[in-house]
Amino acid sequence: MNCIVAQSGGPTAAINASLAGVITAVSEHSEFDILYGAIHGIQGVLREQFQILSDKDAAFTEQLMLTPAMYLGSCRYKLPDPDTENAVYSQIFKVFERYEIGAFFYIGGNDSMDTVDKLSSYGQKIHSDVRIVGIPKTIDNDLILTDHTPGFGSAAKYIATIVREIAYDSYIYDVESATIVEIMGRDAGWLTAASVLARTGTSLAPHRIYLPEVPFHTENFLTDLSALIGKHRNVVIAVSEGIRDAEGNYISATEAAADRFGHAQLSGAGKCLENLVKDRLGVKVRSVEVNVLQRCAAHLTSGTDIAEAAASGRYAVERAAAGETAFMSAIYRMSDQPYRTEFTSVPVSEVANRAKEVPREMINDAGNDVTDEMIAYLKPLVVGENIPQFESGIPDFIDVSHLTRH
Amino acid sequence: MNCIVAQSGGPTAAINASLAGVITAVSEHSEFDILYGAIHGIQGVLREQFQILSDKDAAFTEQLMLTPAMYLGSCRYKLPDPDTENAVYSQIFKVFERYEIGAFFYIGGNDSMDTVDKLSSYGQKIHSDVRIVGIPKTIDNDLILTDHTPGFGSAAKYIATIVREIAYDSYIYDVESATIVEIMGRDAGWLTAASVLARTGTSLAPHRIYLPEVPFHTENFLTDLSALIGKHRNVVIAVSEGIRDAEGNYISATEAAADRFGHAQLSGAGKCLENLVKDRLGVKVRSVEVNVLQRCAAHLTSGTDIAEAAASGRYAVERAAAGETAFMSAIYRMSDQPYRTEFTSVPVSEVANRAKEVPREMINDAGNDVTDEMIAYLKPLVVGENIPQFESGIPDFIDVSHLTRH
Repeated sequence: MNCIVAQSGGPTAAINASLAGVITAVSEHSEFDILYGAIHGIQGVLREQFQILSDKDAAFTEQLMLTPAMYLGSCRYKLPDPDTENAVYSQIFKVFERYEIGAFFYIGGNDSMDTVDKLSSYGQKIHSDVRIVGIPKTIDNDLILTDHTPGFGSAAKYIATIVREIAYDSYIYDVESATIVEIMGRDAGWLTAASVLARTGTSLAPHRIYLPEVPFHTENFLTDLSALIGKHRNVVIAVSEGIRDAEGNYISATEAAADRFGHAQLSGAGKCLENLVKDRLGVKVRSVEVNVLQRCAAHLTSGTDIAEAAASGRYAVERAAAGETAFMSAIYRMSDQPYRTEFTSVPVSEVANRAKEVPREMINDAGNDVTDEMIAYLKPLVVGENIPQFESGIPDFIDVSHLTRH
Repeated sequence: MNCIVAQSGGPTAAINASLAGVITAVSEHSEFDILYGAIHGIQGVLREQFQILSDKDAAFTEQLMLTPAMYLGSCRYKLPDPDTENAVYSQIFKVFERYEIGAFFYIGGNDSMDTVDKLSSYGQKIHSDVRIVGIPKTIDNDLILTDHTPGFGSAAKYIATIVREIAYDSYIYDVESATIVEIMGRDAGWLTAASVLARTGTSLAPHRIYLPEVPFHTENFLTDLSALIGKHRNVVIAVSEGIRDAEGNYISATEAAADRFGHAQLSGAGKCLENLVKDRLGVKVRSVEVNVLQRCAAHLTSGTDIAEAAASGRYAVERAAAGETAFMSAIYRMSDQPYRTEFTSVPVSEVANRAKEVPREMINDAGNDVTDEMIAYLKPLVVGENIPQFESGIPDFIDVSHLTRH
């Protein structure tokens, strides 16, 4: 009996560690023979575009663990409703049959769990015994029924580290200033909340944290910031890209703006607040839009996260080998300190198409900071450093020439 | 005899290593007794705002070495012409006298070397025997008479690393795309050129590199990019923030653009090219503006650079102790491979107010890439990794509460 693994959705610094976990576990379980990696997610299954992974050695999985983005490539492909449209499902399960597949592992976020759920439903309908398994990953940490998602801890560590570095950068001038750092997470504020971990020792930045879960009040923000600058001189603010006003409108550019070629432009929340502060408070202000590095900075990952991502992949293979299907491997936290967790399997049907927002009680009453409960939740997730191998000073990531054209 | 050290200009990840070098060398030279650190550059001298550094231990300098930005704070203060305005110079040299100062060390870039030059001239005029010394730092690498500047190697390593990570992020989808990475360096393309080091193994990104030293031809760029996408599917372009057309106009927004609050906005070269590519080629395109991390990412620095920055500080103290004045410590490269250098002292009057651009012969004929000569120049500068101490997963930088208000 063989199996297939694929990756889907957006990159994280840990998703290849989950793949490495699957590869290692399959090689250890006699139930499974060949492990096929489908290139570009479920589309790779449909196209029968496979790479054999079961012959890879430990050196391969070790290098894979610390390679960012997705070794198998990704797709943004939404399966149709299995109750109304059968063709694509029938094709997928024919491929499963042809390759003698006993288990299909899909590593991804919310949309990928929807794919796992739909494949499971269809499989059940046709009485297939292929086990369909979800392995979570997302920097957004917005999957339910799991304490957190692999990929989040590394992104959280990256955010906390760079906010601390940006704060040090902001402290050097004897001039009042505001620095606004815009962080990913349109609907869930977990990653923005992680900036709180930068606040250690005598460095108080970020002085305020704004999540999308509570309405953003522009006037309150300005009054508060002005007082903060008076008190601390150099102030750092962390905002989610998804902050909205009380009417639900994004705090970002809404009017068309044109560059020299006449193209309309939209700016993000950070740039929008930068302009507002410049205009209303007249202080030195800059905004920093944290770029894609927050999801792919393999040069700085969390030891805890990478280990959990790999263990999550291994756990999925073990449960599938034991006959389980239609589940997602999840993390259950037993205690914060010492940090103790165990893996569980949860029904993927309950995970798909839902999102876990930051609960109101982890945000302070004023809606401009997080609580100690949030800090206790975040702390263990960023512990430990993984540094990839460097070759002549440049990270030596695994070859992905099967994804590129030459 | 005592001495003063100060820092000025913009942050780098290595400028505190030069400060650590000065502290260590002063403690080793019996010529100097107390080392005062002036807070906020030359302004700290005028205000007599000092911190005694000669009593710091090895644990302090070790932690200082890997702390980003500037322990002593910075200023943007341009001294007046010493031939016409004497008051401020007279005040500075009175402070020198009061504190029994025998040497003044100023760690900074172009503007700071102007300060060193002017102080030297004035000192000579009044027959002062205070030695006035410049210690270079800048991520821009644009100082003349030195092979390169401390701070550049770490920024170069950071740029090469993240361009490689961004490239991996771009390879995952089976969809044609362009990714434009905008890098600091308005007038000198050294740091943008360093992105070439990301091009290792089978990963060809960045596929093109555009520096400010040669005119940027929009139509050539579009034709070339279109062909590149046809060939490679996912293409990564590195551009300097300072690219200009043949008439010398910056490739960036020139028309006023308004956000929701009605504020005018200017966009950078990357965003401008993103809009252009979207409009003209119709492919998936994104731009990444590398933020301040390129100058303050202490979490990833070059071992070579940090060691040289510290050695540069030590060398400056040694030469000053030997009686030399009005110089900048410089690096002379004897060979690329093996990488061998030695420190020299160069007249600061020849360094100040000049800038070193990338020579035309280090750029290819088409003006869209760098040559092998540039690669050979860059390679040794990024070798070696320094990872700061982490405490509970967050970098444990040195306390800078003397720079912040509580």
